[in-house]
Amino acid sequence: MKTIVTSSYEEMSSLAVAMLQGCMLQDKRVNLAITAGRTPEKVYEQLTPWYKQFAKSLTNVHFYNFDELEPVGGGAPITLSALQAQFFGPAGVPKTQIEALTYENHSTCDARIAESGGLDMMLIGLGGDGHFCGNMPHAADLSAQTYKLFIKEEYPWYEGIRDLFAQGACPDYFVTMGLQSLMRVKHLVLIANGAGKAKAVRDMCTLPMSAAFPASGLRLHPNFTLLLDQEAASLL
Amino acid sequence: MKTIVTSSYEEMSSLAVAMLQGCMLQDKRVNLAITAGRTPEKVYEQLTPWYKQFAKSLTNVHFYNFDELEPVGGGAPITLSALQAQFFGPAGVPKTQIEALTYENHSTCDARIAESGGLDMMLIGLGGDGHFCGNMPHAADLSAQTYKLFIKEEYPWYEGIRDLFAQGACPDYFVTMGLQSLMRVKHLVLIANGAGKAKAVRDMCTLPMSAAFPASGLRLHPNFTLLLDQEAASLL
Amino acid sequence: MKTIVTSSYEEMSSLAVAMLQGCMLQDKRVNLAITAGRTPEKVYEQLTPWYKQFAKSLTNVHFYNFDELEPVGGGAPITLSALQAQFFGPAGVPKTQIEALTYENHSTCDARIAESGGLDMMLIGLGGDGHFCGNMPHAADLSAQTYKLFIKEEYPWYEGIRDLFAQGACPDYFVTMGLQSLMRVKHLVLIANGAGKAKAVRDMCTLPMSAAFPASGLRLHPNFTLLLDQEAASLL
Amino acid sequence: MKTIVTSSYEEMSSLAVAMLQGCMLQDKRVNLAITAGRTPEKVYEQLTPWYKQFAKSLTNVHFYNFDELEPVGGGAPITLSALQAQFFGPAGVPKTQIEALTYENHSTCDARIAESGGLDMMLIGLGGDGHFCGNMPHAADLSAQTYKLFIKEEYPWYEGIRDLFAQGACPDYFVTMGLQSLMRVKHLVLIANGAGKAKAVRDMCTLPMSAAFPASGLRLHPNFTLLLDQEAASLL
Repeated sequence: MKTIVTSSYEEMSSLAVAMLQGCMLQDKRVNLAITAGRTPEKVYEQLTPWYKQFAKSLTNVHFYNFDELEPVGGGAPITLSALQAQFFGPAGVPKTQIEALTYENHSTCDARIAESGGLDMMLIGLGGDGHFCGNMPHAADLSAQTYKLFIKEEYPWYEGIRDLFAQGACPDYFVTMGLQSLMRVKHLVLIANGAGKAKAVRDMCTLPMSAAFPASGLRLHPNFTLLLDQEAASLL
Repeated sequence: MKTIVTSSYEEMSSLAVAMLQGCMLQDKRVNLAITAGRTPEKVYEQLTPWYKQFAKSLTNVHFYNFDELEPVGGGAPITLSALQAQFFGPAGVPKTQIEALTYENHSTCDARIAESGGLDMMLIGLGGDGHFCGNMPHAADLSAQTYKLFIKEEYPWYEGIRDLFAQGACPDYFVTMGLQSLMRVKHLVLIANGAGKAKAVRDMCTLPMSAAFPASGLRLHPNFTLLLDQEAASLL
Repeated sequence: MKTIVTSSYEEMSSLAVAMLQGCMLQDKRVNLAITAGRTPEKVYEQLTPWYKQFAKSLTNVHFYNFDELEPVGGGAPITLSALQAQFFGPAGVPKTQIEALTYENHSTCDARIAESGGLDMMLIGLGGDGHFCGNMPHAADLSAQTYKLFIKEEYPWYEGIRDLFAQGACPDYFVTMGLQSLMRVKHLVLIANGAGKAKAVRDMCTLPMSAAFPASGLRLHPNFTLLLDQEAASLL
Repeated sequence: MKTIVTSSYEEMSSLAVAMLQGCMLQDKRVNLAITAGRTPEKVYEQLTPWYKQFAKSLTNVHFYNFDELEPVGGGAPITLSALQAQFFGPAGVPKTQIEALTYENHSTCDARIAESGGLDMMLIGLGGDGHFCGNMPHAADLSAQTYKLFIKEEYPWYEGIRDLFAQGACPDYFVTMGLQSLMRVKHLVLIANGAGKAKAVRDMCTLPMSAAFPASGLRLHPNFTLLLDQEAASLL
């Protein structure tokens, strides 16, 4: 694990963009798994115009989401829609370069990635509760490849998920790449900013590996870069 | 994890030899970590004359041990001596190509390997109790790189270790590469043969990851080949 | 370039088999380009029963031919038919694992390989006249990826090719991977045996790079292993 | 070869910086060979403050020069001094992270790089006359690893070199990595800007490989990115 403490959210984002650009600019098929959410907002703000400008030279890049929720009542896929809104749409990424993980195709996700040469880079965030991708505390299977993780009332994060949805519309499960899938990524990049992430960052770096704090397993990754701002690094 | 069930101990050994040869015959520095013990006996029986024959063309290969015991009373290092007796000596591997992990230099082991480009292949065995390298049940730290693992009476395997030594000569600790070190190996190869390993093989493939059965963590490895004979595979 | 001088054709073949096995036994998609012809006869003799025995564990392996001739009058593809007769057929390699280069699809060959993660290993022979794959002396374009090489009377090897075919049935061109395609192969393995190859082996190792002796370009490869028997190595 | 046409020298430089940063921020030993000269001026302008800020987190990065001139009369090494002035000095790169190629140690250059895991990235420029590194037109040996290239009156570039030095102080030779050394670099990045490079860029992309225009050989590289500004790309 290599830890880089930047001076600001902007700088953290710029370095993540540089890493993504460096990876994409290779003369080979490049497979990138990327995260939706608030943390990467500035990453996509910078990456979008750049991607648009060079799109014709970046047909070698394939984008992957690494988790998804089962949409109750057949709505649009939630993670993919967020990525579409944050990056794929504004940047004009062609559908042919988007490799969707869905609740329907998750059982072949790892095989499809393997058949395409593996993931070159994955950009992830860190949950304040220690989750990464859809590997939620207490529920995560740290031995797994891509799998179903069920959303149950017994978990402390249940209400947080439920409240994201209209009544009765909470999905039954996540599909998510597991720690075993992540170990195969050639370069894993985690971004975290703000004081609200400081404790989770410290715990990720120090707690013994356990499903109670799934990100504790990330330290095992063979090529793992942690990009932080000062606040997120304040408890290290 | 890729599982190969061979028809016999001989065939299992031959395939391990083929994998080692294929790795060594590359036109690059090759870093190989190898195991001592009974399981690889036939591997070294085949590999020794071959290495001797081609030694002048194999100066690119560096050999590593992955664990060691602290020798009480300053005796010879135990794992290294075993490797010397089984392979390095008979094959005539020059000292300049042997990269020793010792109780004295273990704290820089991972850094030295990283500085040399990383391990290309590691050949390990599997303990009937679920240990790999010196990662002993209940005592293993599955988050660790190379570390000290203390030998204490409280562990179920204590007497087995103690009885290997003359009275009062039991070492205080192992130094061993940990699961984090192993994740960085480009190709991990585990050999196991005989009915006595069948339960451990099954448990490695199925148990949730925990220090109670350290080999459960190996499933996370990004390029892991399991070579078994029929007996060792009989419970899969 | 790493040169290994074995004691016999049998030993040369066994080492080539070990290298192929070590590559195939990885836990990832493996892309292998292999040669037809007389030199690899013993390779396939050994590899065929082995592949049959482990075929169910080798669905990760995809096989590629690296050249082909345009069949005049619409006959069967010549290289592929030879590989089918020598290896694919006897070993029972499923069609889904054979990635054919044909005169019809050659223009997308490099792109398809790139999309699948690149070639992990390529086994080639060496022509006594210095050709490799279909890169024939004087006609080869040493800057090229996969390309068409025309068979013309002006070349010294013309009659040799023409005489392989019934009157009027000589193909107009080869399609062949070029030196640029080969540079991307992660591990390139060349086998050569017999006194008849001794001069070509020496020239490959010493001549300045030129289309007059195409194999002179192979020295540039970043991970190149040369497996020879004593006779083929006798002029080194 | 992947060609990226940027809108300006500044943008070309920023992308080169991003690629260097992405490479350096990995959690592994990183070996970088970099170029001195005018083209990378803006690269070092941007990279210097960044390196200084993160220097403590970049001790994994080792820097290499790829050519050098024999200093007549025992002066300071010319390329290394230029890199020192342009980057190593201002950025405060510690001597322990600078791996010097000199006229004295050039014969072991490739072996030392191989022993350290190989070069991860190389940043080069392009001579208007088609030279790369010290591979000068007509004099270059395109089959070579690191070698001596003699400076002789018979070459068209002789006066240009001679005039860089006080009378009688012109070096007798370059030492330079050759095309074979470059083929082993995992990612090769060439920067070129300005109308004065347009013809050389076009020739590099189209001329048959020959020592008359050494950069013609670069197309063979397995992972080669060409970063240009509009002017340098104007003849493509």
